[in-house]
Amino acid sequence: MSNKGLFITLEGVDGCGKSTQGSLLANALEATGREVVRLRDPGSARLSEKIRLILLDPANEDMCYECELLLYEAARAQMVRELIEPTLARGVTVVCDRFYDSTYAYQAAGRGLDARMIDEANKLGSCGVVPDATLVFDLAAEEALARATHEGADRLEGEGMRFQRRVREGYMQLAKAEPERVRVVDAVGTVEVVHARVVEALRDVVTL
Amino acid sequence: MSNKGLFITLEGVDGCGKSTQGSLLANALEATGREVVRLRDPGSARLSEKIRLILLDPANEDMCYECELLLYEAARAQMVRELIEPTLARGVTVVCDRFYDSTYAYQAAGRGLDARMIDEANKLGSCGVVPDATLVFDLAAEEALARATHEGADRLEGEGMRFQRRVREGYMQLAKAEPERVRVVDAVGTVEVVHARVVEALRDVVTL
Repeated sequence: MSNKGLFITLEGVDGCGKSTQGSLLANALEATGREVVRLRDPGSARLSEKIRLILLDPANEDMCYECELLLYEAARAQMVRELIEPTLARGVTVVCDRFYDSTYAYQAAGRGLDARMIDEANKLGSCGVVPDATLVFDLAAEEALARATHEGADRLEGEGMRFQRRVREGYMQLAKAEPERVRVVDAVGTVEVVHARVVEALRDVVTL
Repeated sequence: MSNKGLFITLEGVDGCGKSTQGSLLANALEATGREVVRLRDPGSARLSEKIRLILLDPANEDMCYECELLLYEAARAQMVRELIEPTLARGVTVVCDRFYDSTYAYQAAGRGLDARMIDEANKLGSCGVVPDATLVFDLAAEEALARATHEGADRLEGEGMRFQRRVREGYMQLAKAEPERVRVVDAVGTVEVVHARVVEALRDVVTL
């Protein structure tokens, strides 16, 4: 094991339970004696949270797709340089809600933007940092949307079922393209059952 | 002549006089019966002006270079989609203070970011739109800085002489690489003298 901290990212459509599972995962990691920092993308750094507010404000529905993409990447870059890189360098584990796979799933698969362009943008925004493991919490679009509505709908959630389906397919493409890094976790079941799947999915990376 | 409007961009270090010259140029273009829209990058569109505030706020001096780059591109993309493309499509001339050449000059030449990365970012932020003609108002760094201080220093202007010199050199590299599009105008002289140079520099594009 290197002295660098583990970098684990959590992905999936809104309502898939990744925040809840992220907290359980962080607790389990801490129980092994690790120090853990929880982050969310976009956000976490002061400036990134500022950019997040612009991105999620329904008043900005006139935002073009390219602007949206670049704002996500800007927020991400600041979080990487200010928080992720220094934290991993201290040997601390980072568990992050969303990272560049979200941009692929939402902007390329969901919105239909050119995948090569998204790749270039993701390289810029991630500053070249790659997660050690990425968990995709998989849920049928209908189920995800039903759950998300209870939590309040933001701009993305308002765009409906077909969009959610394309996003889900985008995640499956990523899991196919990078099976070593991207692990699909069935998100249907009790919190405890899904957590057990998370522990299993990370078995080669960390013993929990 | 096509029905598409002319797209002219104005470049140069702060204090080079491009705003003043932009107004004179717009007047001269209007005197030929053209409709002219003046824009500034970053800015002009509502959302782009919001992003501009973040970029120029001295409180955000913890902004990493990648975040800065991506915010400029985000603001630019919104301006392109919301204002530049529709305006040019109506046959209206656009005169814009700064565009992607600024990103090359400031971020690549000035800050030392990878030029290939800047090119990719510029492609994203400009949505592929290329100016018909770009005027670089050239001024020695010492002179530019002296002028800029009178107008109040923002974050970029505070970084001093050596940075200004690198930016100026960046502009000269662009003029060398794309002589058809990028035209260097000596910015030393009275407002009237420099305006006459502008008219001359644009002679093959428009008769003023």
